[in-house]
Formats: sequence, structure tokens, C-alpha cells
Amino acid sequence: MSNKDYSLKELAIVADGQVAGDANLIISGFAPLETAVAGDISFLVKAGQVSKLDDFSGSAVIVPMDIETAPVPLIRVDDPYLASAKIHTFLLEKPFLAKGVHKQVCLGKDTTVPEQVSIAAFVSLGDRVKLGERVTIESGVVLGDDVHIGDDTTLKANVTIAEGCKIGNRVTIFSGAVIGSDGFGYATDKRGFHTKRPQVGIVQIDDDVEIGANSCVDRAAYGITHIKSGTKIDNLVQIAHNVIVGENSLIVSQAGIAGSTTLGRNVVLGGQVAVIDHVTLGDGVMAAARSGIHNNQKPGAQVGGAPAIPIKQFVRAATQFGKLPGMGRDIRKLKKEMEKLTAVEK
Amino acid sequence: MSNKDYSLKELAIVADGQVAGDANLIISGFAPLETAVAGDISFLVKAGQVSKLDDFSGSAVIVPMDIETAPVPLIRVDDPYLASAKIHTFLLEKPFLAKGVHKQVCLGKDTTVPEQVSIAAFVSLGDRVKLGERVTIESGVVLGDDVHIGDDTTLKANVTIAEGCKIGNRVTIFSGAVIGSDGFGYATDKRGFHTKRPQVGIVQIDDDVEIGANSCVDRAAYGITHIKSGTKIDNLVQIAHNVIVGENSLIVSQAGIAGSTTLGRNVVLGGQVAVIDHVTLGDGVMAAARSGIHNNQKPGAQVGGAPAIPIKQFVRAATQFGKLPGMGRDIRKLKKEMEKLTAVEK
Amino acid sequence: MSNKDYSLKELAIVADGQVAGDANLIISGFAPLETAVAGDISFLVKAGQVSKLDDFSGSAVIVPMDIETAPVPLIRVDDPYLASAKIHTFLLEKPFLAKGVHKQVCLGKDTTVPEQVSIAAFVSLGDRVKLGERVTIESGVVLGDDVHIGDDTTLKANVTIAEGCKIGNRVTIFSGAVIGSDGFGYATDKRGFHTKRPQVGIVQIDDDVEIGANSCVDRAAYGITHIKSGTKIDNLVQIAHNVIVGENSLIVSQAGIAGSTTLGRNVVLGGQVAVIDHVTLGDGVMAAARSGIHNNQKPGAQVGGAPAIPIKQFVRAATQFGKLPGMGRDIRKLKKEMEKLTAVEK
Repeated sequence: MSNKDYSLKELAIVADGQVAGDANLIISGFAPLETAVAGDISFLVKAGQVSKLDDFSGSAVIVPMDIETAPVPLIRVDDPYLASAKIHTFLLEKPFLAKGVHKQVCLGKDTTVPEQVSIAAFVSLGDRVKLGERVTIESGVVLGDDVHIGDDTTLKANVTIAEGCKIGNRVTIFSGAVIGSDGFGYATDKRGFHTKRPQVGIVQIDDDVEIGANSCVDRAAYGITHIKSGTKIDNLVQIAHNVIVGENSLIVSQAGIAGSTTLGRNVVLGGQVAVIDHVTLGDGVMAAARSGIHNNQKPGAQVGGAPAIPIKQFVRAATQFGKLPGMGRDIRKLKKEMEKLTAVEK
Repeated sequence: MSNKDYSLKELAIVADGQVAGDANLIISGFAPLETAVAGDISFLVKAGQVSKLDDFSGSAVIVPMDIETAPVPLIRVDDPYLASAKIHTFLLEKPFLAKGVHKQVCLGKDTTVPEQVSIAAFVSLGDRVKLGERVTIESGVVLGDDVHIGDDTTLKANVTIAEGCKIGNRVTIFSGAVIGSDGFGYATDKRGFHTKRPQVGIVQIDDDVEIGANSCVDRAAYGITHIKSGTKIDNLVQIAHNVIVGENSLIVSQAGIAGSTTLGRNVVLGGQVAVIDHVTLGDGVMAAARSGIHNNQKPGAQVGGAPAIPIKQFVRAATQFGKLPGMGRDIRKLKKEMEKLTAVEK
Repeated sequence: MSNKDYSLKELAIVADGQVAGDANLIISGFAPLETAVAGDISFLVKAGQVSKLDDFSGSAVIVPMDIETAPVPLIRVDDPYLASAKIHTFLLEKPFLAKGVHKQVCLGKDTTVPEQVSIAAFVSLGDRVKLGERVTIESGVVLGDDVHIGDDTTLKANVTIAEGCKIGNRVTIFSGAVIGSDGFGYATDKRGFHTKRPQVGIVQIDDDVEIGANSCVDRAAYGITHIKSGTKIDNLVQIAHNVIVGENSLIVSQAGIAGSTTLGRNVVLGGQVAVIDHVTLGDGVMAAARSGIHNNQKPGAQVGGAPAIPIKQFVRAATQFGKLPGMGRDIRKLKKEMEKLTAVEK
């Protein structure tokens, strides 16, 4: 399953790990414990699961440091989950193979295409588009005028990037995603008619970002909507105009961020989270799935619920929610008893 | 409106019904009661609505068994809603008309196209793609390498199916849907950087499934994300990696199912429902719109709310929610009165 | 940044405003206060922000009527937010420049294309499609058979409009939107199998509507799904079959409206709002983000929460939600005290 074979020793270097067992063992693939076959390396996240190795049919296992020996050769690491991601990725790596530009591609004026690219059929590039080296563009992708794409970036099938947007290096944008659509901004007159506010900004996506399938990142009204480096965005996510998402954030599927809101670094928004417009979430804020955030959040805040409150408070309150009818009954009963008592007192 | 005319007798057979009236009456179309014209058959779901037939301008009506006669010829059936769907579908049926492969289609290496297909312009098929008989592929569809499509399957305009995914027979995938995009899986190091976990599995979609417009079904990390036969998925739904959706389930618009969660048969998820990762919903589970499911659910469970609780409990609790401020006031008052009383006691 | 220069006097007419200062001053662009440069006009929404003009580097400002003089020339208007939208739009206006029909466009039978259009590469138009004057169709757009598009309408890249749908004048449909996909309608038999109900209606979109990126508007089961004039729909919105959305409504991102529901004029649905099927929302109803509407709503109703209740009640109740555990404790304590007291009484 890998593109080249490596020794256990070589793989240990990738993950900053220590070999226990035959360091020259040759590894040709990666698979989970349950499905690994001869030649595969696998991984075990917790020492407590070590009995799973009894039925193991693969050749080696990435394990936590507190496992010292096992029936198979090991790579011992601090974080097997992370190490296995690095080793699996390493095994799958292959040199970029430029397929060139398919003859049924539409190129605009003054659009420059480097030699080392793969551009599939039915791709349309606007005027003055700039592509980096080793860019892969699948079929059905449309880039507007003046779009810039960095090196080693991949645009999956049917992606749309509207005019003027700037995409960094090593970015992956998955199918159906729309970058640079107009922000949702209108001014309403007394009769209730809406006049569109021109959306003349762009979207800037920095290096190492991933944008999921059918997600939308709107262009700024003025200036930029900015997705900073290392951030990963899941499918069907909405990022409104002038939003700033800090570095290395994770935004899970179907979350939505309203206009001009700013997220710090390493913010995590769970699935279907909504963040209101014009608020700031500090570095490391974590919002549980389905949170509705209406206020600024301090760095490191962990919230849940809608309107969002501290997660521990939310969990405790949510547990009580189903008891509301009983609480109502108790209160009514207490009131009656109190009335009797106070009548007696009088 | 139909492609061929049929007698009432012929249509009754389709729906396993009984004719009351002229069995040789010719029916040429289907329409709702309000808009039916001569030649149309219509339907009435409940006997209590029989007075609606007074203004009826069509030619025949599908009715429940407890209506025995009416001013128009009838097909009497156990379930008029179901019978009307079958008869309407039957009236619309037409033989597959192969339009062949448009000259502006891009075919990969070793991709085999049967004679009886319709493939529109600007469709891109990867290498080693296999298409079944009577497949319809609309414009803008992109199939990655090694995709297999079963017989009688329809891919609407601008659908994307990424490499290796397997689609069954009689499947319909609506426009903009993305099948086989990468799952959202990362391992995060101590500095907060995310390493992508390779997503090397596929999506398998079994027979008779429908996938709505702009919905996303992610490929498995390893193995398969599996949508089993007969399941219908609405628009803008998110199905994450390694999810299994059992047979004949219904997933309404904007619902999202997180990674490695398993749904049984005939599960119904209402609109905007969220299901957390790594849980199991038994056969026949029903979740009200907007439920947030955080736990395994037993077969037949009916739930609502977020976190989801039994639907009856949720409805009762939700009714009390707006009364919370009053309850708070009552409690504060009771506490004061209690203080007075206990002070008196002392 | 504008396409032509105008005098302050000319711009004042556009916005029905009054000039204070040099009426012949030439304006060549529009920018926010913070980034305006010489030649730019900007805007100030509230008189209280007038100190912001101290650092202003642009040439003129649109201000509310209660500002009479300032260090720069002014256009005084009733509503600067609206006036600035009109003036900015006016500055950006340019005559339609027909690029004609790209040679790699697929035209169906009896499809008529006026001279004054711009149709990009890899666009597919079905049979009997009718396009209005000055229509712009970007790359990757697919129109089914019998689709009608009005004058001055723009279809952004990768939009899909299925057969028979009718789109009005001056409509903009953003990338990835799907108009006219099948409604989600099935009849289920006793064994749990679903029979599709044919979806034979269309979608009708009236003049001056905008539909956001990756939004879906499903075709009617019978008749029409109807988006009336002036309505603006954001990204990733779901409009189910047979929904009617009244004039000049605003539907924010990720909202969903279930089947056969009717919205009046000037309805506003916040982000992620869900509206159940078969209900009616009167003119001017406003639903806060994430509301779940289960009932008819009277004209002008303002609601929040799920199930939605009057917004003021919701806000008060939501404030109490986090206090539920404390309320539970208080009630338990009161019950104990009450037991003691009533024991004493006895």
C-alpha cells in the first residue's frame, strides 16, 4: 500500500521514536490492528490495549513509551496517534507527477501556468491567474480572474474560487467548496426593499489549510476574509464575510461563523456550532457541538449550549433539563403547602 | 402527463387495489385533487376528506378501503398515500433512451462505457471507471479513478465521486453532492499543529439509495463508509468517515452524522439533527428535528432535544422552558417565606 | 475603484441627500473610513462617531442628517447605511459587456441565446432553454431542459438549475447552488421500504432575488416552489418542496425550511433557523439564529429558541438555563424543610 518500502529504523526517525526489536525489518504498508497483514505497521494508542496484539497479523506496531516489549517489533513513541499519522503519511508520499494541462482547459488572458502542474479537463481559469509549482487542479474547477494559487496546492473537482482570492501553499480545497462568493450584506429601506452592499474584498487562505467539501468562505465586504495557516475546516461549513480564523483552528462540519467575527489560534468549533457576528473568540477556545456563541470568549474558554455558557455549567444544566416538568410540579406543591402554613401562622 | 395511457384496472394491479366503477376507464395522468383534469387520476388519503370529491374535475381517485362508492370511479387501497406514489411512478415510467456518450466527455485509461448509457457534455471519468447499463450522467459530473457505478443509476449535474467509491444499482445522486471526500481526521502535536491522518478508505453506496443535493459522504479513514440499500438522504447532509447507515433509513436535510457512528435499519433523523461520533442507533430509532444525539440509542427509541432524551420527556420539558423565569421567582419567594417560617420555629 | 468619476452633487442625487461643502468635488471611489484615500467617499452611520473623521484621509463622507458640518465635504442623508450602499453600487456600475458564447458551450435543441450575453466555457444548456438579455453564465453552469432565465440575471460558476425551472430578471445565483433538485418525498410500506413520490413541479424564482453559494431550492412535488421578488437567501440554505417565500425576505446561512411552509413578506430567518413543514409565518416575522419554529406565527412575531417562543421570553428563559442545577438544589432543600415543618405541624 505504500509507494516505497522502509526499514523500521527509518520509520522510527520520522516519528521521533525508538525501535524495540529488529530495526532492519522492512515495512511496506500501514493498516489498523484488525486488518494489518504481513509487511504492515499498525498502531496502539494505549498501553492498556496491549492484549490486542495477540491476534495481530501485521509486522510491527507503533506503541506508547510505557510498552517496552511485545510479541512483535515496536516503534515506541510519546504519542502513537500522532506518530502513526506521520508514518502513514510518510509511507504514502510520492514525488509529484505533473500531468500537464489537459487540452480541454480554458485559460484566460495573461494566465501563467508553470510546467510542473496537473490540470484536468474542463477546468476554467480566468484572466491573470497565477499558479504555483506542483499545483493539482481536478476537473470542473473554476478560478475567477486574478486568483493566485500557491505551490503544492490541490483543488479537488468542482471547486469554485471567485475573482481576486489568494490561496497559499500546500492548501487542499475539497470538492464543491466555494471560496469568494459575495458576503450577505444589504441595507433595507423604509418600504422593506433591500439594497445590496457591494462586496469588494477578497478571501485569503494561508498555507497548510484544508477546506472541506461544499463549504463556503465569503469574500470580505472590504479587505479580506482570512483563514490563517494550518487551520482545518470540515464539510458544509459557512464562513461569512470579514471573518478571521486564526492559525491551526479546527472547524467541524456544518458550523457557521457570522460576519466580522475573529477567532484566535487553535480554536475548536464542534459540529453545527454557530458564532454570531462581530465577536472575538480568544486562542484555544473550544465550543461543544451545536453551541451558539453570542459573546466574546476569553482564551481557553470551553463552552456549550445556546446561548453558550461554560461547558461544565452547560452539562450540569442540560442534565436537569428533562426534569423541568417535575420541578414545576414540586414548586406548585411547595407553594400550596406554604400557603397552608402561612395561613396557619396567621 | 404520463408516457402511456392505462386502464383503471391496470393501475389497480400496480397498487394492489380494487376498482369501484368503470374498470376500463382510460387514465392518462396523475394530479392532486385540486388541479386534476379529465383523464387524471388523483388520491384522497382519508375517508373524512370525501367531500373534497364534490369539486373534483379529474377522472378517478385512489381512496382508502373504507370509502366504498363516490361520484367518480375509484381504486380502493389499504394505503392511498403509498398507492398513489406507485401509480404516479408507473404512469411516468418510460423505457431508458440511451443518448450515448457526448463527444466532449473526458474518459480515463481503461474506462469502460456500455452502449446503453447517457453521458452528457463536460463529464470527466477517471481511469478504470466501470459503468453499469442504463447509467445516466449529467453535465459537470466528475468520477475519480476506479469508481464503479451500478445499473440504472443516475448522477445529476455537477456531482463529484472521488476515487475508488462504489455506487450500486438504481441509485440517484443529486446535483452538487460529493461522495468520497476525505474524512476530517488529524492528530495534533504539543505545539498545536495538526498532522492529517491519511484517509485511505472508500464510500460504498448500495442499491436504491438517494443522496440529496450538496450532501457530503466522506470516505473512510480505513475500510468503508457505508450507505445501505433503500436509504434516502436529503440535501446538505453530512455523513462523516466510517459511518454506517442501515437499510431504508431516512435522513432529512442538514442533519450531520459524526465519524464511525452506526445507524440501524429504518432510522429516521429529522432536519438538522446531529449525531455524535462512535455511537450506535438501533433499528427504527427516530430523532426529532434538531436533536443532538450523544449516546447509543436502543432500537425503536424516539428522541428529541440536545442532548437527546425520550421525545415525550423532551416535549414536556420544552413546554416548561419558557416558564423558567417564573419558576426562579417562585423559588426565591418560597425561600424567603421558608426563612421567615423557620426563624419563627426557632 | 469606480468605473467613472462623479461629482458630490451627482452622488447626493443617487442617495436623496444634501451636500454640505464643495458640491463639485470629484469622487472616484468608495472605501470605509479607515482605509479611504484621496478621491474616496466614505460613510459614518452615527453622529456619535464623528470624531472618527479626525484621522480621515478620504475626500468626502456620507453622514446622518444631524451632522451639519465637518472638516470634510459631506452628503447628509436620512440613512447613511442605505445611502452608502446606493452610492457604492452606483460608483461600481458599468455597462453590460457581452462576451458572447464561448465555443466550448453545449447548447440543446431549440435553445435560443440572445446576442447580448456572456456564456463561459463548459456551460451546458438543455433543450428549449430561453435566456434573457444581458445574462451572464459562468463556467460549469448546467441548465436542464426548458429552463427560462430572465434579463440581467447572473449565474455564477458551477450553479445547477434543473429542468423546467423559471428564473426572473436581475437574479443572482451564487456558485454551487442547486435549483430544482427533487423534493424529499417518499411513501413507506409496512415492511419499511420507501417508494419515491414523483416530484413533477418546478421552482420559480422572481425578480431581484439572490441565492447564496451551495444553497438548495427543491422543485415542488406538484406546482411550484416559489421564491418571490426581492428576497435574499444566504449560503447553504435548504428550501424544501412547495415552500413559498414572500417578497423581500432575508434567510441567513444554514437555515432550513421544510416542505409546503409559507413565509410572508419581509420575513427574517437568522442563521441555522429551522422551520417545520406545513406552517405559515406572517409578514415581517423575525426568528433569531438557531430558532426551531414548529407553529404558525402571526405577522410581526419575533421568536427565538426551539421550539420557538416569543423572543423576549426566550431571552429571559435562556438566562435562567444555566441556573437549573441551583434551582434543583433549592427545590430539594425546600422540600426537606417543608417536610420538617409539616411534621412539626402535625
